[in-house]
Amino acid sequence: MAQVLRFAEERDLAVVPFGGGTSLVGGVDPLPGAHRAVLALSLERMVDPLAVDEVGRLARFQAGIRGPELERYLSERGFTLGHFPQSFERSTIGGWVSTRSSGEAVRREGELSQWLRGLTVVTPRGILRFEEPLPEAAGPDPFALFPGSEGSLGVIVEVTVAVRRKPEETLYRGTLFPNWEAGVEAGRELAQGHLPPFLFRLTDSEGTALTLEGRGPGPGLSGRVRERIEPRYLEFKHFDPGTMCLALQGWEGTPEEVSLSEREARRVTREHGGMDLGRAFTEFWRRERFAFPHLRDDLVEAGWMVETFETAAAWSEVTGVALGVRQALEERARAGRWALLVATHLSHVTVSGAVLNFQLIAPRDPEDAPGQAQALVQAGLEAVMKAGGKFSHHLGVGRDRLNLLASQRSPVETTLLASLKRALDPRGVLNPGKTLSLEEGPSNPPKGS
Amino acid sequence: MAQVLRFAEERDLAVVPFGGGTSLVGGVDPLPGAHRAVLALSLERMVDPLAVDEVGRLARFQAGIRGPELERYLSERGFTLGHFPQSFERSTIGGWVSTRSSGEAVRREGELSQWLRGLTVVTPRGILRFEEPLPEAAGPDPFALFPGSEGSLGVIVEVTVAVRRKPEETLYRGTLFPNWEAGVEAGRELAQGHLPPFLFRLTDSEGTALTLEGRGPGPGLSGRVRERIEPRYLEFKHFDPGTMCLALQGWEGTPEEVSLSEREARRVTREHGGMDLGRAFTEFWRRERFAFPHLRDDLVEAGWMVETFETAAAWSEVTGVALGVRQALEERARAGRWALLVATHLSHVTVSGAVLNFQLIAPRDPEDAPGQAQALVQAGLEAVMKAGGKFSHHLGVGRDRLNLLASQRSPVETTLLASLKRALDPRGVLNPGKTLSLEEGPSNPPKGS
Repeated sequence: MAQVLRFAEERDLAVVPFGGGTSLVGGVDPLPGAHRAVLALSLERMVDPLAVDEVGRLARFQAGIRGPELERYLSERGFTLGHFPQSFERSTIGGWVSTRSSGEAVRREGELSQWLRGLTVVTPRGILRFEEPLPEAAGPDPFALFPGSEGSLGVIVEVTVAVRRKPEETLYRGTLFPNWEAGVEAGRELAQGHLPPFLFRLTDSEGTALTLEGRGPGPGLSGRVRERIEPRYLEFKHFDPGTMCLALQGWEGTPEEVSLSEREARRVTREHGGMDLGRAFTEFWRRERFAFPHLRDDLVEAGWMVETFETAAAWSEVTGVALGVRQALEERARAGRWALLVATHLSHVTVSGAVLNFQLIAPRDPEDAPGQAQALVQAGLEAVMKAGGKFSHHLGVGRDRLNLLASQRSPVETTLLASLKRALDPRGVLNPGKTLSLEEGPSNPPKGS
Repeated sequence: MAQVLRFAEERDLAVVPFGGGTSLVGGVDPLPGAHRAVLALSLERMVDPLAVDEVGRLARFQAGIRGPELERYLSERGFTLGHFPQSFERSTIGGWVSTRSSGEAVRREGELSQWLRGLTVVTPRGILRFEEPLPEAAGPDPFALFPGSEGSLGVIVEVTVAVRRKPEETLYRGTLFPNWEAGVEAGRELAQGHLPPFLFRLTDSEGTALTLEGRGPGPGLSGRVRERIEPRYLEFKHFDPGTMCLALQGWEGTPEEVSLSEREARRVTREHGGMDLGRAFTEFWRRERFAFPHLRDDLVEAGWMVETFETAAAWSEVTGVALGVRQALEERARAGRWALLVATHLSHVTVSGAVLNFQLIAPRDPEDAPGQAQALVQAGLEAVMKAGGKFSHHLGVGRDRLNLLASQRSPVETTLLASLKRALDPRGVLNPGKTLSLEEGPSNPPKGS
């Protein structure tokens, strides 16, 4: 790998590390930057498990291994990593780290730093190895710079992770809340309480209508759920189909643990006016959890624009951000004379805040499809920042969001990041034109210096 | 603050940020480096709470506030931060962050990153503000560089933290394990299980003897504990006083939570041959938890050498590191003809590993007291690294451990850190001669460049 990077420097080639290729933000687009050509550096053969320490519950993998193979390997030994991003089926562990990916679950705050324990990174200036089963107090820790670096500082070739015993039991329940606010409050109370669910995913009223009504044929919602969402039953329960919001909750662990936390969740749900839809959602969720990327491909092929973006917000800002974004998107759609459907999801509920994910679906503008998508996402992300949210929680920066990232960085932060880039990749061969380029810095050293 | 740093640059003064002044590694020693003199930058008046968001459970403080005042402020609002390092009574939140301090407790892995949500840092090149209620995926995150930076990259002036509801109940129990290995295994099983205790602290046989026998007058161990450690009772229970190890376990939360996790801990303790010493330890621990710094001062005044160092180790390395260090210390003491008592503590048990803390007590060498302390600590830390441990978990680097840190850094890491230092503190005024100096880099820019 070090030789490949040397070769690229000598021949003046840009290098784009390529894992699963599932970036939604142009993270692996072949941009040459100031170089002669682009070398796509595929990790598809670096897929081996390297070591597993069953006592210390640590496992080390080559960076190119994909989600299903990684979980299969651990599962055979009674363990799981438990990281399930929506791209799970196709994306790689190296990609998860380099984009600072988040899984579906609220596993101890639902974050990479909860399971990442080591990295080997090949940079044009040498190899960095980090193995930190526990955090250290040994000066500023460069380890922390590589999650989120998106191939701009080095190529991640090995990853060490903390694994855990496979849960004995996993259980999901569906819930209907009378409105968005009630669902958000319930999610917050659960996340801040003891024994939180490992999954809490709330869909706004538009998304709820889409989920409950828009299903085609095939094994859909069970009879019991169908009964409960009958208009007459809802009326009897004083539920307004125009405002009600569907939530999915999940628990895992020992049977005792699951039963305790499920009981707590049902209490909180009731207190916020929620209606239980039963465990029938378990199968529904198993089928649907990784379905969106496929649905997206189908819709795009059928002539639709499908975009998605997300943000993290503190609890006190969650509803303001969600409303602000919807308003901005609707205004922009009116201005462009586009029909637009927006579904908002709240997920990754933590003690301090949650993630908001926005799915945008519209008939593709025949005149300027790329302009339509860009205008809508831009309007949405600007509204996010205006309302106090951050512009990216788990999709990364890539090519598409570089302008927004630059606008959020202060001059001193830009200087700092540019100095990092120069120290590790002085010729700027790594993934130029995206997350972090040499050109961003205040001074641009002469080429080949 | 920015003006102070400008002033220091103009007048060629080194700046040593000063919080509680509790560093055990020379972190606030007044070293001028290449500068004319040293300016001690005290934060003792920056002690105000700035904001508290009770919905989002976030609180922001000026960096100079000390542990007791911070907890008192939160407590009045029903919250706690729950970070209790041994220096708690005197140290500041800014100091906790800048040294990447660890508390007594295993709170969600017992680490700073679990509660740190924002920082304002004044550097000679500008002010950096980070507010991240949730982790972000927006490129490499410079936020992560400041914990552990020990005043070498900037002065931390504000800190935002995640707080939580005060636990309704807190409970401690003492346990005797027949030997070290049994205690370690019990700690590991609990840390890797569900509902782990928030505190698990195991003392080796030497430390146990010191604790149980070495108490002077005053309110000590309760009658029940005294009965259980009677030689005849121990013999009846087949406990060898020469190998037995004392453990302290703690639980907190709702009464239901405490009762569940306490029950689980007693089961695991029994399985590993442990003997319950009852809840009498609660009061004992409350009194002793912050006593060591005071005891240390008393002993030093009475002519003793007291040193302490610590390391983090993966579970598979814990016992090897503990044995290797003891052996190396005993050898070095023999070579120096010093009587030496070593007490080893295991704490911060996490899923992946634990922290080992070593306390060294010896009659001070009348000929060369500093040489004695340095030789012993050096021998211990070298043994740590030889056995696979890391040389610092929570005391930091400071002045005393700089040589060891340098030996652990690879050339590319050194280059990277030097580039950071140059970007933020190009004249090297911040805390020179310690964690991170300009002089460490591969190239030393001309002074005043």
